[in-house]
Amino acid sequence: MSEVYYFRNEFLPKEDVRISPEDRGYYFGDGIYEVIRVYKGRMFEAKAHFERFKRTALAVRIPLPDMGELEAALQELIRQNAVEEGSVYVQMTRGTAPRAHNLNADTPPVVMAYCQKLSRPVDKMEKGIAAATVPDTRWQHCDLKTLNLLGNVLLKQKALDQGADDCILHRDGSVTECSSSNLFIVRDNRLVTHPADNLILPGITRNVVIRLAAELELPVEERALTVDELLGAQEVFLTSTVQEIVPIVTVDGKAIGGGTPGPVTQKLQQAFERLILA
Amino acid sequence: MSEVYYFRNEFLPKEDVRISPEDRGYYFGDGIYEVIRVYKGRMFEAKAHFERFKRTALAVRIPLPDMGELEAALQELIRQNAVEEGSVYVQMTRGTAPRAHNLNADTPPVVMAYCQKLSRPVDKMEKGIAAATVPDTRWQHCDLKTLNLLGNVLLKQKALDQGADDCILHRDGSVTECSSSNLFIVRDNRLVTHPADNLILPGITRNVVIRLAAELELPVEERALTVDELLGAQEVFLTSTVQEIVPIVTVDGKAIGGGTPGPVTQKLQQAFERLILA
Repeated sequence: MSEVYYFRNEFLPKEDVRISPEDRGYYFGDGIYEVIRVYKGRMFEAKAHFERFKRTALAVRIPLPDMGELEAALQELIRQNAVEEGSVYVQMTRGTAPRAHNLNADTPPVVMAYCQKLSRPVDKMEKGIAAATVPDTRWQHCDLKTLNLLGNVLLKQKALDQGADDCILHRDGSVTECSSSNLFIVRDNRLVTHPADNLILPGITRNVVIRLAAELELPVEERALTVDELLGAQEVFLTSTVQEIVPIVTVDGKAIGGGTPGPVTQKLQQAFERLILA
Repeated sequence: MSEVYYFRNEFLPKEDVRISPEDRGYYFGDGIYEVIRVYKGRMFEAKAHFERFKRTALAVRIPLPDMGELEAALQELIRQNAVEEGSVYVQMTRGTAPRAHNLNADTPPVVMAYCQKLSRPVDKMEKGIAAATVPDTRWQHCDLKTLNLLGNVLLKQKALDQGADDCILHRDGSVTECSSSNLFIVRDNRLVTHPADNLILPGITRNVVIRLAAELELPVEERALTVDELLGAQEVFLTSTVQEIVPIVTVDGKAIGGGTPGPVTQKLQQAFERLILA
């Protein structure tokens, strides 16, 4: 059965989705997106994702579609593609227009969405991954979930080239996040993570973890943390919509906490699993 | 007559160019481009543009097409569209693949090009434009001509919102460039412009102007320049492939050199005109 896309308010087979060469998304990366996790056929933390979508749209000045209709359309897309466990990707560009930098209020945005069947990355969650530190050379608006992702692509590739699974970015001495996930360390039995300012994406799973930590009475510090603190941490893990909570067991080849997932990370993974299976 | 595009090695009517929703250019802005000026039906400074295209492709690791074939295709595109005075736009994305950050060597790049008929912006060149200073929040690889242009779009819009025609960007106290052009000031009868490092695009017209300045025995300093130096300059002008040399006669509402184009700028404009009409 062909994959069904949602494109310009219609449900279409993938083969029929044809992007205009004049789509500003294609020549400027001028658009925004969300990736929403699907468990048991339903969108997880949908409200938080739609709030972030709205916030990004406002910041980059792309007019919003009717958000109730969009949410219903995505739920219908999940149904048509029979996704039980997976994700839905939705992006919105500023629309089609001859190439010019200035905004054009008359251009209706182009919304496109599709689903993916996707298992939880159990192996990575159990064994952990290797990361490499890489200087964060991205722009000053990393809080905006836009289609300008070439920086993230190239920074991740630097880590892959070194044989690691992902990068841990740092800027002016502070650890920010990974290529498409947020970063936490455990230090003195407290969680430490970069504040949700303009230098990191305010991750939905990041917020869920902060909530779970409160329930588990684990103190959380949102503050700048140094590369030295990272390398000397008891535990390190990343959080992401698609990957959930993944331990990072080596950084730049150095084992973290003996090179195996630590008890705090595991406790959070278990709490997260209870939440999504509830 | 329909506009002709060059797309995936074919000449097609614009309506037949259909971009895949899985083009990495569409969801990551993962691609590069050039805009080449056409005078008298021929590409101006073609060699310099192709060299920069090659340099950017290498930096972002997109494999190059046969550059001789590409140049011939663009010249044929200009002919088919009967462009005497205008521009040719060419972009190359990393190709189509399911969305994932890591590079995939098996994905053939997607090349797309089109032409535009375009007069020289004589009015702006004669009267000058107004600019507004805006903090430069872009990434650290502004020397790469990639499709990640949302920063440039939003920064220009800040200037437009203030009633100016373009922005003059500054970072850590230094003036870098404009939204899609390089910036020069005249001070003590010398040209000053930001060095061609990672913070500005190494403009082709910028280089032509530096060459012309040498011929005219005008000293050129490539160095960091402050916002104060900008505001106190004798003359200010921008250089761009499409706009050539355009005087900036007010900055943040303050008149530069009495608010009219200055003699050094005009001398360079005349030399540039001699060059392109030769």
